[in-house]
Amino acid sequence: MSNTILLKSRPEGVPVSSNFEFIEEKIPELEEGQIHLKTKYVSVDPYLRGRMNDTKSYIPPFQIGEPIDSGIVAEVLESRNENFKTGEYVTARLPWKKEIISNGDNLQKVNPNTAPLSAYLGILGLTGLTAYLGLTKIGKPKEGETLVVSGAAGAVGSVVGQIGKIMGLRVVGIAGTDEKIELLKKDFGFDVGINYKTTKDMREALGNACPNGIDVYFDNVGGDISDAVLFHINKFARMVICGAIAIYNETSLPKSISVQPFLIKNSALMQGFIVSNYAEHFPEAINALGGWLKEGKLTYEETVVEGFENIPQAFIDLFSGKNKGKMVVKV
Amino acid sequence: MSNTILLKSRPEGVPVSSNFEFIEEKIPELEEGQIHLKTKYVSVDPYLRGRMNDTKSYIPPFQIGEPIDSGIVAEVLESRNENFKTGEYVTARLPWKKEIISNGDNLQKVNPNTAPLSAYLGILGLTGLTAYLGLTKIGKPKEGETLVVSGAAGAVGSVVGQIGKIMGLRVVGIAGTDEKIELLKKDFGFDVGINYKTTKDMREALGNACPNGIDVYFDNVGGDISDAVLFHINKFARMVICGAIAIYNETSLPKSISVQPFLIKNSALMQGFIVSNYAEHFPEAINALGGWLKEGKLTYEETVVEGFENIPQAFIDLFSGKNKGKMVVKV
Repeated sequence: MSNTILLKSRPEGVPVSSNFEFIEEKIPELEEGQIHLKTKYVSVDPYLRGRMNDTKSYIPPFQIGEPIDSGIVAEVLESRNENFKTGEYVTARLPWKKEIISNGDNLQKVNPNTAPLSAYLGILGLTGLTAYLGLTKIGKPKEGETLVVSGAAGAVGSVVGQIGKIMGLRVVGIAGTDEKIELLKKDFGFDVGINYKTTKDMREALGNACPNGIDVYFDNVGGDISDAVLFHINKFARMVICGAIAIYNETSLPKSISVQPFLIKNSALMQGFIVSNYAEHFPEAINALGGWLKEGKLTYEETVVEGFENIPQAFIDLFSGKNKGKMVVKV
Repeated sequence: MSNTILLKSRPEGVPVSSNFEFIEEKIPELEEGQIHLKTKYVSVDPYLRGRMNDTKSYIPPFQIGEPIDSGIVAEVLESRNENFKTGEYVTARLPWKKEIISNGDNLQKVNPNTAPLSAYLGILGLTGLTAYLGLTKIGKPKEGETLVVSGAAGAVGSVVGQIGKIMGLRVVGIAGTDEKIELLKKDFGFDVGINYKTTKDMREALGNACPNGIDVYFDNVGGDISDAVLFHINKFARMVICGAIAIYNETSLPKSISVQPFLIKNSALMQGFIVSNYAEHFPEAINALGGWLKEGKLTYEETVVEGFENIPQAFIDLFSGKNKGKMVVKV
């Protein structure tokens, strides 16, 4: 029975199921200091696509013939490590395996009574941290300003928009279906939602949605949407470059409107954001997110796919926007 | 006799002489509080091209039928203002006129004994301030890092490179003639010069010139050169976007390689820089520049064109790189 998923070949463009291989690996005998984990939830995320290319980046690329890894919540089945007990739950970046042998390094314990287990892959995990720290540390939002979020119905985007509202900004979200636009406005409290798939002129639509211009842009997508944003940025605008899902799958180098003249004109900033650079702020972020969650000020959406065998397809489906909020696989 | 230069029409692409009109304006009678100035040196700068378009920017566009203005050093011919005396020299952003009536606002006195008058339009003027403040406040250079400067033989670029060397960086300059490359290395102390006009593969050339990658990029040009830089930026690279002369004259929206994936991968920053936002740091900058100038650590190059009637052509010649260092017109 297959229990491990390897990268079989590097995707060209959008990943397909033949890029992945299921194999059965024997689970080794537990040694002193080790823990035997059972995978409960697996996070699938757009950024994993970048790691499937063989290029230098902030985390090393996946190797062909090796397991893929991502955020996982697992249960301790058996422990020969004094820091962990059977029945406890942990989270970490772990390989796509049904069962995992770990030495305990980098495992963080999570409490299933505080929040559902899957939340630790989302709103209380890297997703929430990314939203909070990208927005506050680079976007530096100020009350009364206008925030535009692309990929707004996605895992990170929906949290960014809600934090923007908590902080008193006008929040405009961009997403790709009318259902998502409804969600933005009803569930997440965005002021305006723009469906980029049915909007002919994004530049005009953004102008209408942002009568006072754009002060903060939280960018999850890149591409044409981000080009349209440039025409409306205000002096000293901050653009948090968090993801570029619109161009991750391009096989040639994507081109965009040259940003330089817009940056000069507006003394504006664009900064690439990677949450791991802000590790010293994690406690602050978790504290804020946990507080808002408890107060009912933050809600989150997740799309749960069932079954270990569906992990690759769940990942592939991210690129056609099949998820609402965080996409996780329940194993 | 013509004594005033107006914007006659907005340039399309590279400016041409018919975009300018020479007229004779009567010089009004001097009133109480006013000063009669005689123009000595006029600064021509690439950024003026942007002001010739009718678009929102950090300074209002020039109006058709109105005089163009830029940095000018002038002599006080007659004064009915107690703060200024005949024979003193002043600098400010002033209209392209042979003689100017001013109420004294915003005029800064300059001392012809400390440095030649034209230096106040260059190394001790906005050029030097731009180089120093752009590099230090956004570029945040650290000893041992690698700095790349585009438009390196230009007024700002040549100062940026020298400051980089003073601060202990490896400095690579990009310019467009072999003569300029010689100048960079011999006069300004750059470690490497790359002639982009004779280099087939800029990406490769930059890779060879920057074996440890690029930490700071001071961008005066935009366009293909800046695209090539992206492939070599290091983690936490800072790109100071100071000018985009390569694309100022494009009549359609220029396109470039999408910067977003590079910014994300490297947690890198691009920031538009306008010196006037940093006015509170001018004293610090002038102090540093003046000190280095006195110690002989900074040299500057200027191209002096003679004659009021040659101001438009001197400006036009900027776009074919006819200047070395700061371009000024002696009136």
